[in-house]
Parts: sequence; structure tokens; C-alpha cells
Amino acid sequence: MKKLLLLLWFFSAAYSISAQQNDSLIIRKLFTEVLTKGQCYQTLDYLSNQIGGRLSGSPEAARAVSYMQQTMKDVGLDSVWLQEVMVPHWVRGEKEEGAIVTTKDRISVNICALGNSVGTPDGGLEAQVIEVKGLEEVKKLGKEKIQGKIVFFNRPMDPIHIHTGTAYGGAVDQRSRGASMAAKYGAIGVVVRSMTLALDDNPHTGAMNYNDSFPKIPACAISTKGAEQLSKAMHLRVAGSIKFYFKQNCRMLADEKSYNVIGEIKGAEKPNEIILVGGHLDAWDNGDGAHDDGAGCVQSLEVLRLFKTLGIKPKRTLRCVLFMNEENGLRGGLKYAELAAANKEKHLAAIESDAGGFTPRGFNCSAVGDTMVRFQSWLPLLKPYGIEKITWPGGGADIGPLSKQGVITIGLVPDSQRYFDYHHTTIDTFDKVNKRELELGAASMAALVWLLSEHGVN
Amino acid sequence: MKKLLLLLWFFSAAYSISAQQNDSLIIRKLFTEVLTKGQCYQTLDYLSNQIGGRLSGSPEAARAVSYMQQTMKDVGLDSVWLQEVMVPHWVRGEKEEGAIVTTKDRISVNICALGNSVGTPDGGLEAQVIEVKGLEEVKKLGKEKIQGKIVFFNRPMDPIHIHTGTAYGGAVDQRSRGASMAAKYGAIGVVVRSMTLALDDNPHTGAMNYNDSFPKIPACAISTKGAEQLSKAMHLRVAGSIKFYFKQNCRMLADEKSYNVIGEIKGAEKPNEIILVGGHLDAWDNGDGAHDDGAGCVQSLEVLRLFKTLGIKPKRTLRCVLFMNEENGLRGGLKYAELAAANKEKHLAAIESDAGGFTPRGFNCSAVGDTMVRFQSWLPLLKPYGIEKITWPGGGADIGPLSKQGVITIGLVPDSQRYFDYHHTTIDTFDKVNKRELELGAASMAALVWLLSEHGVN
Repeated sequence: MKKLLLLLWFFSAAYSISAQQNDSLIIRKLFTEVLTKGQCYQTLDYLSNQIGGRLSGSPEAARAVSYMQQTMKDVGLDSVWLQEVMVPHWVRGEKEEGAIVTTKDRISVNICALGNSVGTPDGGLEAQVIEVKGLEEVKKLGKEKIQGKIVFFNRPMDPIHIHTGTAYGGAVDQRSRGASMAAKYGAIGVVVRSMTLALDDNPHTGAMNYNDSFPKIPACAISTKGAEQLSKAMHLRVAGSIKFYFKQNCRMLADEKSYNVIGEIKGAEKPNEIILVGGHLDAWDNGDGAHDDGAGCVQSLEVLRLFKTLGIKPKRTLRCVLFMNEENGLRGGLKYAELAAANKEKHLAAIESDAGGFTPRGFNCSAVGDTMVRFQSWLPLLKPYGIEKITWPGGGADIGPLSKQGVITIGLVPDSQRYFDYHHTTIDTFDKVNKRELELGAASMAALVWLLSEHGVN
Repeated sequence: MKKLLLLLWFFSAAYSISAQQNDSLIIRKLFTEVLTKGQCYQTLDYLSNQIGGRLSGSPEAARAVSYMQQTMKDVGLDSVWLQEVMVPHWVRGEKEEGAIVTTKDRISVNICALGNSVGTPDGGLEAQVIEVKGLEEVKKLGKEKIQGKIVFFNRPMDPIHIHTGTAYGGAVDQRSRGASMAAKYGAIGVVVRSMTLALDDNPHTGAMNYNDSFPKIPACAISTKGAEQLSKAMHLRVAGSIKFYFKQNCRMLADEKSYNVIGEIKGAEKPNEIILVGGHLDAWDNGDGAHDDGAGCVQSLEVLRLFKTLGIKPKRTLRCVLFMNEENGLRGGLKYAELAAANKEKHLAAIESDAGGFTPRGFNCSAVGDTMVRFQSWLPLLKPYGIEKITWPGGGADIGPLSKQGVITIGLVPDSQRYFDYHHTTIDTFDKVNKRELELGAASMAALVWLLSEHGVN
């Protein structure tokens, strides 16, 4: 018996070493291919510079769907299809947006409408402005102080956090919920400090969600330099003497038909077990959506291209999903999960890249217990490539609905320092993406996809 | 006895926990200060945009010495002084540099003289060109094939390496030693593919060292796009029909007097034990030396400023050294070590930042055995800030001479992906530096300096 156990141990250990060696070779191949013959950078060039901002429902979004569908076919995936989904169609409008702070002088400041906001009246909106540091302060000030005014949300992202996403998470409620909170107490408009740690002139748009119980009032973002100017003016002058004027022409149109773009490589041994890798194809209209999330889309497709071009046959099915409407509705992510459940599809894991095309540092992951232990046992294979850790919790917006169905969700974690310099602005452009950083992210996801496909999750 | 040992263990463990808590608090303070009130970014702004490229011996280098000396005084360091050193004075010359590839057409390509090179004759230099992949190939081709020609070194940096410094190390011998190797076999000039992984139009200068046994022939760098054009032309046409013409006006002048700029905070308990932190103040003339190595200089000074401004009293002496002439002679580093030995100064450790102001990822370090074990035991304190590892070997060019005296040398390791996009070019400018990435590097060095000062090295 002892001998048998020893033998079993020996074979399992021997297998494990040879498996590890094979994994190591495959991973090296994936990185070498992407760093020498990667295609994701040129796909991103097209998506950014030939299509540009592609908000749900826009002609640009429709072109992006066609282009990425064709690119998937060109890669030679086993199957490529579109998944229909009705999406919101918000437009910024043709006429110029603008804002003026009136104190003793009239100071022009940079703003842009927040996504999903209503426009101002044609002649713009002007009122006394009141500065607050957050939603709670609006509640505390109450109707008496808020009624008839424009509320200026000016709590900055806190720079002391090392991961900038944490700083973003600590401030973004002002953007997403500030308008309805202010409207509840009678405000007629809101202006929100841009969600960035940089001090500059770029206003950052982003989703704002109305609570249907309160009036829909116009909401805009002001650049951080503009916010500093406005705040300084308010502290220098008698509060009541400061007026804020802004004008925006945005509006919500009727829902439009759009699509998630999907392609896959069938698994050789367990075709019914799906490993999903994806990003979102829609992007804010003001920039080119290069980092957010063109990067995630081209990286996800590159993962499948690497397997195809290197002739690596995965045991399980690899599926690339480019979700529509992450930015202002999440309809694509919701539709995908709904159909996955309806069709009884078995997703083993879903990986999302939606934090910019910067040098990858690790993954975050919803797995716990033995599964997490297994994932972390792969770290020695990934560390030579700069993937330092796999942390809990994790996932992403588009794969959130799958997570609710019990699917393990994983997020690629790139270096976060520069993301919010560009996020949701006119400067989220192709020239801000470094070719190698983008490629390393694609290869890191491909390596993890290989390990998941080869060894499963438990 | 058992009780006594237990008691001893208990006290030592208790001390260790409380010391760790103290370290953790201090490190948090250092990061918070730099991320909220850091000054290194504005110092770099001045150094880059008001002074710019500051090659040894130039008026800009002299201005940089004065400016950094004054800035150290403004910070309120305990003492600030200049350390005289004679440095080479190479100048690119006033007239334009240029090159033309003559095949059936005449193609203009971007070049720049390599540092320390002689100029071409006034009318330029033209000859048949021969392409090689490295020094060994020159030797193999021998006098018969090389004589009278311009040798084109065109082995690219290998993109498969994850750390770009490894790729650089694998190609840079062509730049540093190619000219003399080619001259040995009768070449009359060399043109070297730029040391970068990017495919673009920027030629990268950098030090070239003549071997005095052979004639000094002119050497230039060609942009990677230019190198591809030249190589393609040579493969398309009969080899002998391709000529390369280049013109550069550089020359070496007499040595100039210059300085290492030094400032320190005296240690409260062991003032004779020095912890050095530094970078090099000289920078190539073609760009502004923002990443290379303005970043390292302002980070090093920021380390001492953090201690000063937060009122943190180090046990040991902290010394900031801004070395002169790293780029084309290393005279500052050599002089510093020579005087340190002559004055019997005791350096506990020396830390150098000279790999760009990008997000810090770790340190490399020359320590071995118990000392390395001790350093790595500090990693749990550093990992929350993104410092993932301390690896052997390590150090830097300027502290290399100290290393030979047995001083532990340490290099800050930032993310390496973008460094060689800018390195030694006209685009190594302030706008390429991200404020937070720069600050995180400064705070990471400050954290390590704190631990070294508090706990020593063995």
C-alpha cells in the first residue's frame, strides 16, 4: 500500500512538474508572439482614429460593431456572431457647451454635460451657486439653503490612495447621484468637480443616474482647474454674489438597437465549458475611447488571436465578448447574462479588462477557498511577466451580472496612476497608449486563460 | 531559565511588533505628504523647462548646479555643499546634423551624433555602407569587407524581454563600442540603430567610447524608422550601390570644472553612518533630461525634504548626492567614491534612481545573505505601496564605484516599458512625466531610507 501511494505520489508529482513546464512554455510563447507580432495595437489605432468616440446608439457605435465583427472573422475564430440588445441613445447635441462664473468679473470655465443628463433651457441656466463636499451635506443644508440654486459638488478624489480606483470610488457618488439628491431639495442644476487626480482644464464626463422620484435637472462636470477657480471665487466674495451659468444641449433619444460582438474558439475536450474574456465596445463621445475601453476590447480579441495563430488548442471554449453600453446603462452586460442563463450556458470564469491599457500588475478575482488557492498557485508562472498578485474581491461591470449567477469573475489590474488623467475626456486618445503596455496586458490575460482552460477552476 | 527565555522572547516580539507599527505609520506619513504636498514635480518642471538639457561642462549644467544647490538650501538641510570635479566637455556643435541614404533616390533620415564622437569633415562623410548585426560580425567580415566603408550596426533591442533594460543591455554594445571595433578593420564611420523598442523618427544619442588603439571615426545614431528604411534599401538594391552620407559638427573640448551637489541631514544617533540617495544631474543636450535623470535628482532631494518637513529625525545621516557626468564619463561618481575613501566615510548603503520617473515596482540590491533577508523582511511594509520585490543584484552607475568599496548599493526599479521611448532623445521632456508616478518613486525611496536608518543593515 505504501509503495502504491508512493508511486501515485511520484506520478502525480512528475505530471505536475511536466504540466508546469508545459504551462511555462506556452506562456512564454504567448508573450513572445504578442511582443513581436502583436496585432492589438493596430486594431486599437483603427478603433480610436478611424471610428473614435462610440457611445451606445451612435453611428460610431454601429461602425465599431461592424469593424470588430469583421476583425474577429479575419482572425479566423470558429464562430462570430452579434447579440442584439436595445440601448439608450443619449446625445450631447450639436451646439457648444459652456459655463461662466460671474463674480465681479465673468470667468469662463471648462465644463461638459454628464452622461444621461437633460440639457439646460436654450438660453442656458443661471443661478446662485452653493458649494458642498458631498451628498450628505446637501441633506444637511436642506431645502432652505438649496432651493433654486445650482449645487457645486467639489469633494476631490483623495490623492493619498495608492490605487487611483479607490480614490475614484470615494468621490464618484457626487457624479452619479448628486443631481437627484440636489433636485430632492429644490436645486435647479448641479456642477460636479471632474473625477481626476490631475489639476488641469479637461472636464470629465461619465454616467449620471436620475432617481425618478425627483425632477430631472441639468448636470455638468467642471474641470479641476475650473473647480478650483469657482471655489476660490466663492471663498473670496460674499457667497450670494456668485452666480454660475451653464448651457448644454444634450438629450436622451429613444432606445436604439445595438449589439454585443462575440467570437469564440471551441474547446477541444470540454466545449460546453466557457471561459469568457472581454471589454466594452462603447465609449464616451468626447474622446476616442482608446484606454476606456478600446484597450480592453483589442486585448480580449488578441487573447483569442494568440491561441489561433500559435495553433494552441484549448481544452475548453474561449469566448471573446465585446459588450455594448457599459458606460451609460450596462444593457449589454445584462442582456448577455440573461441569455447565458436562458440558454443554460456554463461559464467557468469571466475576465474583464476595463481599467486602461497600462502595464499589467495583477488580477482581482471573486474566487474564494480552494479555487483562490489554485489560482494563486499559478503566480510563479506569471511573476516573470510582472503579474505580482491575484487579490479578492474582483470582477468588472459587464461581467457583474454573470457574477450574480455564480460565475467566477476576474479583472485585469493594470497600473492605475494615469488612468484618471484621460478617463472620459477628449484626451483619451490613441497616442496615450503605449504599445508594449497594451500588449503585456493582452498576454497576461492569455496566460490566465490558458491556465483556466487547461486546469479548470477546481 | 525557560521562563526567562520566554520573557526575553516576549519582549523582543513585543518590541518588534511595536517597531513594525511605528515603521508602518512613518511610511504612511511619507506617502501621504508626497502625494498631497509633494514638491519634486515642480522642481523637475524648473529643471526641465527653465534649464533643459545639461550635459557636463555646458552652461546649462552650471545653472543646474546652482539651482539644485539653492533648492537644497531652501529645503533647510543641515548642510549643503559642492564637490569639485573636472568633467569632459563634449559639444554637438551649432550646425545641423543630417544624413542621406543614396540608392536610386536620395532619402533623408534622422540621425544625431553619438556622445563623445568626433565630427565629420565640414562637407560631411559619404561612403558605401555595410550592415551588420553586431561587433562579432565586424570581426568576421574583416578588413576586406569593412575597409573604407561606413558600418551600419542594426541589431534591434529584443522585444521579448519583459524588462526593457535587459533588451537595452543586449544591444548597447553596438553604440558604446561599435565605432572602435569598426575602425579597427578600417571603417571610416559608423551609424548605429537607436536604442529603443519604439518604431519612430527619434534618434537616440548616448555615450560612445573610443578605444585609443584605433582611429577615432565619426559615429551617429539613426532613428529606428530610418534604420528600417536603410536596411530595406540595402536588401532591395545591389549592396555596393547604396551610399550613406552624414554630417555632424560635434567635438570634444578641454575638460571643465563642475560639481557634485550634496546636501544632508545629520543622524541623531549615528551621525557617522551615511545613507546616500541620489541621481545624476547631467543630461543629454538634445532633450530636457526630464526622466533621465531629472526625475532621480528631484526624487532624491524629495526624500530628504520629507524627513525635514515631517520632523522625522533619522538615527543615521541621510545624504542626497546629485552626481555630475554620469552620461559621458562618470567622473562625478568616481570622484565621490575617491573622496569618500580618502575621508574614511562610512556609507551604510547607497540608493540610486536612474531609470525614469515611472511607477515604482521594487528595488534591486547588491546585498546578500542575512542583509538581503533583512531587507526582504521589510517587504510587507512596502507592498501596500506597490513595491513588490527586492532582487539581487543591484545598484547604479554613479554608485558603482562605492560598490567596489563594499558599500551596499540599491537601485529604484520603476516600471520600464516607456523609458526607452524617451531615453536620450528630444522628447525626454517634462510632459512625459506623470506627477503621481514621480512622487510614488520618491516616497518609496524615502520609506526604504527610513528602514535603513532605523534598523541598519545587519
